[in-house]
Amino acid sequence: MTDTDAGCHRNDRDDAARWLIALLARLPGLGPRSARRAALHLLKRRDALMIPLADAISETARTIKTCTVCGTLDSSDPCRICSDETRAHGPICIVEQVGDLWAIERTGSFHGRYHVLGGTLSALEGVGPEALGVPRLLARLKEGGVSEVILALNATLDGQTTAYYLTEVLADSGVKLTRLAHGVPVGGELDYLDDGTLMAAFSARRSVETP
Amino acid sequence: MTDTDAGCHRNDRDDAARWLIALLARLPGLGPRSARRAALHLLKRRDALMIPLADAISETARTIKTCTVCGTLDSSDPCRICSDETRAHGPICIVEQVGDLWAIERTGSFHGRYHVLGGTLSALEGVGPEALGVPRLLARLKEGGVSEVILALNATLDGQTTAYYLTEVLADSGVKLTRLAHGVPVGGELDYLDDGTLMAAFSARRSVETP
Repeated sequence: MTDTDAGCHRNDRDDAARWLIALLARLPGLGPRSARRAALHLLKRRDALMIPLADAISETARTIKTCTVCGTLDSSDPCRICSDETRAHGPICIVEQVGDLWAIERTGSFHGRYHVLGGTLSALEGVGPEALGVPRLLARLKEGGVSEVILALNATLDGQTTAYYLTEVLADSGVKLTRLAHGVPVGGELDYLDDGTLMAAFSARRSVETP
Repeated sequence: MTDTDAGCHRNDRDDAARWLIALLARLPGLGPRSARRAALHLLKRRDALMIPLADAISETARTIKTCTVCGTLDSSDPCRICSDETRAHGPICIVEQVGDLWAIERTGSFHGRYHVLGGTLSALEGVGPEALGVPRLLARLKEGGVSEVILALNATLDGQTTAYYLTEVLADSGVKLTRLAHGVPVGGELDYLDDGTLMAAFSARRSVETP
């Protein structure tokens, strides 16, 4: 920490604190400045936070696996969702990333199973159907018992391109295909909405129950 | 990760990922949502980032000590600044926190030594002169060789109260006392400055060299 660019060298392993700051700065949401703040925060809470955090990272790196059935990350394989017999076997919800699965789980509104693609189709980056586990998904459908495939992909260009591809692939499977509704976000103000969302909300308008 | 509030339980150590997220969320600059993103980012980069980060945190926690001379954090005690014979012995720069020392070191504009208070005086929180290492500072001054004490405390109410206290304590020490200049930040626009800074910049105005 003695020269003019403390915390900026990325390969300077002779200084433990600088190395720590460089690694922390690679986390999403932390830049060089906030990584320094985080490192100081840790150093001031050595026993309460710093050592438990090192243990948690090691422990998680050691124990978390990718579920060979659905592709999510969990401490067991098959994951606890796939092996949970109380969850419905009929619906499979297709998501792009593990974080999307976590988001849906937090809502508590879905009690089926998942298929995590791990990304979207991308010709430029060479991501094809195999990389997204599409053959694995088709094998799951062939095993039978699946009543519905819910396309819960991001409403982005990449997400919707992938959803369109999956729609074509799954068209002949005889399984009901659904997608998440587009519309005004709960709490959203019309004035701040983009045109696409507003148009989608209009065209998908629903009749109001009258007493 | 299977129930409705994945990533929110703070004491749930049976789930390594959830424990990791709870600890990451305690870092400054990360909330529950960004802690989840950071955890997923780590899990996807197990060998390149996750395991090195765990090692760096453990290593730093193990090796970093508080310098018994100036109070900064470093891998050696006395720290590399205090034991650097090429640095001037005359000036001592008083800062609140280790992060302030790092910020000054990054500028490369100071080649003396430091005294890290570790906070500011606070009657409410029971922080007195002893907790800030003021007796240790006075002992350093008595040893001789100190020509100037630079008060580089934050320009906040707490920082300036502490600076005022130190001014009184050091008045009889025979050492030159200085403080950082107040004024317009470099690149700052007058229209966005607070009144206090603008007033300080006016009263400390300097004559312009004319050719």
